[in-house]
Amino acid sequence: MKADIDRIMAERDLDALVIFIGEEYSAALDYLVGRVRLTGGLAVKKRDVDPVLVVGGMETAEAAVSGLQVLAYSHYKLHELLEQNDNNGSYAYAAMLAAALAEQGVPAGKVGIYGTVEVNTVLDVLNRLRETHPDYTFVGDGGRTLFDRAAATKTADEIDRIKSVAARTSEVLQATWDFISGHKVDGETVVKADGGPLTIGDVKRFVRAALLERDLQEAGMIFAQGRDAGFPHSRGQEDMPLKLGQSIVFDLFPFELGGGYHHDVTRTWCIGHATEDVKTVYKLVRDAYDIAIEQFTLGKPTHLMQEAVQDFLEAAGHPTARSEPGTDKGYVHSLGHGLGLKVHEAPYISHTRKDDTFTAGHVVTIEPGLYYPDAGYGVRYENTLYISEAGELINITDFHDELVLPLNGA
Amino acid sequence: MKADIDRIMAERDLDALVIFIGEEYSAALDYLVGRVRLTGGLAVKKRDVDPVLVVGGMETAEAAVSGLQVLAYSHYKLHELLEQNDNNGSYAYAAMLAAALAEQGVPAGKVGIYGTVEVNTVLDVLNRLRETHPDYTFVGDGGRTLFDRAAATKTADEIDRIKSVAARTSEVLQATWDFISGHKVDGETVVKADGGPLTIGDVKRFVRAALLERDLQEAGMIFAQGRDAGFPHSRGQEDMPLKLGQSIVFDLFPFELGGGYHHDVTRTWCIGHATEDVKTVYKLVRDAYDIAIEQFTLGKPTHLMQEAVQDFLEAAGHPTARSEPGTDKGYVHSLGHGLGLKVHEAPYISHTRKDDTFTAGHVVTIEPGLYYPDAGYGVRYENTLYISEAGELINITDFHDELVLPLNGA
Repeated sequence: MKADIDRIMAERDLDALVIFIGEEYSAALDYLVGRVRLTGGLAVKKRDVDPVLVVGGMETAEAAVSGLQVLAYSHYKLHELLEQNDNNGSYAYAAMLAAALAEQGVPAGKVGIYGTVEVNTVLDVLNRLRETHPDYTFVGDGGRTLFDRAAATKTADEIDRIKSVAARTSEVLQATWDFISGHKVDGETVVKADGGPLTIGDVKRFVRAALLERDLQEAGMIFAQGRDAGFPHSRGQEDMPLKLGQSIVFDLFPFELGGGYHHDVTRTWCIGHATEDVKTVYKLVRDAYDIAIEQFTLGKPTHLMQEAVQDFLEAAGHPTARSEPGTDKGYVHSLGHGLGLKVHEAPYISHTRKDDTFTAGHVVTIEPGLYYPDAGYGVRYENTLYISEAGELINITDFHDELVLPLNGA
Repeated sequence: MKADIDRIMAERDLDALVIFIGEEYSAALDYLVGRVRLTGGLAVKKRDVDPVLVVGGMETAEAAVSGLQVLAYSHYKLHELLEQNDNNGSYAYAAMLAAALAEQGVPAGKVGIYGTVEVNTVLDVLNRLRETHPDYTFVGDGGRTLFDRAAATKTADEIDRIKSVAARTSEVLQATWDFISGHKVDGETVVKADGGPLTIGDVKRFVRAALLERDLQEAGMIFAQGRDAGFPHSRGQEDMPLKLGQSIVFDLFPFELGGGYHHDVTRTWCIGHATEDVKTVYKLVRDAYDIAIEQFTLGKPTHLMQEAVQDFLEAAGHPTARSEPGTDKGYVHSLGHGLGLKVHEAPYISHTRKDDTFTAGHVVTIEPGLYYPDAGYGVRYENTLYISEAGELINITDFHDELVLPLNGA
């Protein structure tokens, strides 16, 4: 939780952290200071002290929405720093950052650097600071980051926001099911009223509008049919017509409009009918999901849940990422991941990441799948769940698991 | 242009460049390899050689859309690298990056680091490489970056895409004008059919849907009324009702759905009527725009255009960012900026950046404004223009400049 940030900073001996703000949404910035619509600047936080925002004069009003102290670039006389540095923006920015740190009571020390930005610009600023301010050590953070660790356990408010996104996402799934179902068929092709094929692009357009109506947005849903469904991260081809009897992997992971909390759900649909092969692997995947749920106990290492699913699918004759590392056939990925302001965050339910244990406040996906691109299909089933204060694993994805989507169009 | 990348690499003595790929859209990645929907990995480019993509096994199909050589993590035995590095992801990733560079024929040398990603993760990988592979020098890039320089001059295809976004954006502006105009008034408040106030949130919802219908999306339009309009980057308050006679700054800078080329336009609207103060400054701002256009000649330093506008507005009695650096009253910002895959990129039309000259292929905004938040208003007028092969400055924003938006609701 956010309240853990200072403690984790102390564990890591961080005197301060700095978030570089860019035009992109930054989960770290949102987590630390709340939603502010900035296009540049810095968030500077001394340990055990509230962060301050350093922004351009045009964005002070937006920054003030955070309720935090806001300092304009002019406070640091950035235009003079530019002149003093022959208009080298990185040099001037480096000088401003050092001044801000000093003003916050951090004239030297270990400073964690964060932010979702163009990395080249940050590297340029840090290179300058290494020369001009050698009393600072600027450090990165990989693997389980400070924000990963803090954000992994959600507050009740965060879980409520995720539940709200889940409820709206389920409405969109049902609307999409109904939208497709309302079409007709011509031979093996799903067609629109005008006789033209219903394409994946048409479906994605429908989904985006349905999300937007509910103040949600997406950054790359998966709606992949046939062979494409056999590649877990294939997004699907826009101009591909929907066909009867093909497996469609529909993975929808929208977030609050403008950046915020996510929900993540996958269903596999076959329009009109499913092949015996797909039915068989779909049942296996559904069973694998149930096995995963049965494996849950509070405090258990997450990797054991993944390994139980791997045991099950390997016993059923399928390769897994454990039995054949790097395989692109069978059960090729992790079982799940945390989600919140990021669609992928801690904890991870993976056989290669053994440092997570199930903890109250976790919000995770559970998403087994089987993939056979050469056979022309893939299957995945995914819900989002959270671990309550009482230590129960509670599913918040309220959508049915029917495989076959019937066409009801006249 | 993209063809300039190798030349600029040579000028900077870069043996290779690496783009770290994350979940966010990256303009540099799009520019270098085209639109691919990846959530991680690396683009590695040796100078004078096509880039290769290094991605997870689940994303090889998406990566292949680029037409470039694709190497899966398994090619570098990432799972073994993880084991060899005690499951330290940054260490394993560092080893994979070094292996990829070596395989591309860059066993040592100067490597530029790019990408829009969580900067902390990249810093962690680079820190490791500095220890394990001291024969490389990894460099950042600030100010006028390699990609800024290459992308500043657009090809005919790029300009066509921007024109298409411009045409669709103008449709959305007109639809928004008509949408607001169709409302009624109750006292000073614009109201909906049900008598409730029409809010800025309602308008933004309408705009987002209208953009989506045209395969466009936005990342933070400005629709700011009254005092908020006096802060150039205030986004506007969702729950604020639209009022008669207030200045509204509507700045719309959408891009191709999923990430791509932008268009940027601002209009100032007053519903029903405008105050004399706003009419006066609006005329000044429109005149300032015309003066800017008149200043254009091919090859001219861009800052001279900004300074001509500052001369004009200062002579009219307004403070500017030149006469009063850091001012939040008057003409407080630059005159314009390049745009393309990024909404803000080179060239810049600013009195503090004197290294740009107008060049064929440039696509720029020209956007003078005057801001008086304490007086409760702000005004901006902005079009997007490009410089043709023949050296002409051509406006591609086809939308009228009427200040007063009449209410036609029954």
